[in-house]
Amino acid sequence: MASPAGPEIERLIQLLARLPGLGPRSARRAALQLVKRRETLLAPLAEAMQQVSERVRVCSVCGNVDTSDPCAICRDETRDPSLLVVVADVSDLWALERAGAVRARYHVLGGVISALDGVRPDDLNLATLHQRAADPAVREVLLALNATVDGQTTAHYITAILADLPVRVTRLAHGVPIGGELDYLDDGTLAAAIRQRGAF
Amino acid sequence: MASPAGPEIERLIQLLARLPGLGPRSARRAALQLVKRRETLLAPLAEAMQQVSERVRVCSVCGNVDTSDPCAICRDETRDPSLLVVVADVSDLWALERAGAVRARYHVLGGVISALDGVRPDDLNLATLHQRAADPAVREVLLALNATVDGQTTAHYITAILADLPVRVTRLAHGVPIGGELDYLDDGTLAAAIRQRGAF
Repeated sequence: MASPAGPEIERLIQLLARLPGLGPRSARRAALQLVKRRETLLAPLAEAMQQVSERVRVCSVCGNVDTSDPCAICRDETRDPSLLVVVADVSDLWALERAGAVRARYHVLGGVISALDGVRPDDLNLATLHQRAADPAVREVLLALNATVDGQTTAHYITAILADLPVRVTRLAHGVPIGGELDYLDDGTLAAAIRQRGAF
Repeated sequence: MASPAGPEIERLIQLLARLPGLGPRSARRAALQLVKRRETLLAPLAEAMQQVSERVRVCSVCGNVDTSDPCAICRDETRDPSLLVVVADVSDLWALERAGAVRARYHVLGGVISALDGVRPDDLNLATLHQRAADPAVREVLLALNATVDGQTTAHYITAILADLPVRVTRLAHGVPIGGELDYLDDGTLAAAIRQRGAF
């Protein structure tokens, strides 16, 4: 689909279409919106991208992204040093931080072991995880991984790696999501929720 | 939702969320994708936006967007000078060009008359339309406007404006879309398709 608006806009459309959530058609709509609102949207967005591109670094300690290295979370002295939360991806770290669910430090694996996608343990940020978990201050490693086959495979693998260390390895609870309707839940979740039932 | 990744990324997320097709959640995913693929996606996208921001202009003749003014379509001597296609928006112009439906020149109104949205005729690019339609070379003005109430109101208004000129004012045909199923079509479309039926 050639655009009648020149190669610059066409290139912008192609790059926008590579963002998750935007297809070729919505990228075209987005590009047009950007062109129309050149002063209020396009110029600020170009500048914001430039700034992020120049300043954002991957934290050498935990794998988070931030403008400083180590990141703000790793430098935050008020966080519980005894707990290390292992996540697959920065987006999971962000989700946990948004929820304010835990005030600890993180370790971002950069993915999960996956036979299908050809991701082997060597591809993940696992070597430094063992080092960090060996810190005497760390007493618990919480595996906050997706409840998928790949996530659980990775969790088992990490449990084996950390077996020689005096840390407690934990995982997230399974059960009914808040606001969830039993009727729509899968059998595995219902079985887990029954098995791990608690006092009312 | 504060991001644990600093104000630069937060600003990028907020700006991305203003693109059509991206909400706050998908903007966050897109920003993360950009940060992860800094070299291959973020930097090229920032540069493409910068280029578009600097080079793209609105065509002073037809209202299209292009890197030149007049735009490539207005300068294209091979196009039929006797037909002027009136569209509401640049996206409609792009759609017609993609379809290769017509090799003529366009006139972009920049919207349609809408009582609900407070768009009055003065807000549209109508003054120059009369001038352009008065060109002796122009023999037909095709109103390629949406088949909505606002689109048709605008079409009627334009017909009245151009009544003093010796041009033929036409509109797009109504009927069954190619690939469309009768069962799912509204009564108005079906009635129009019957009314304007042709020989097989």
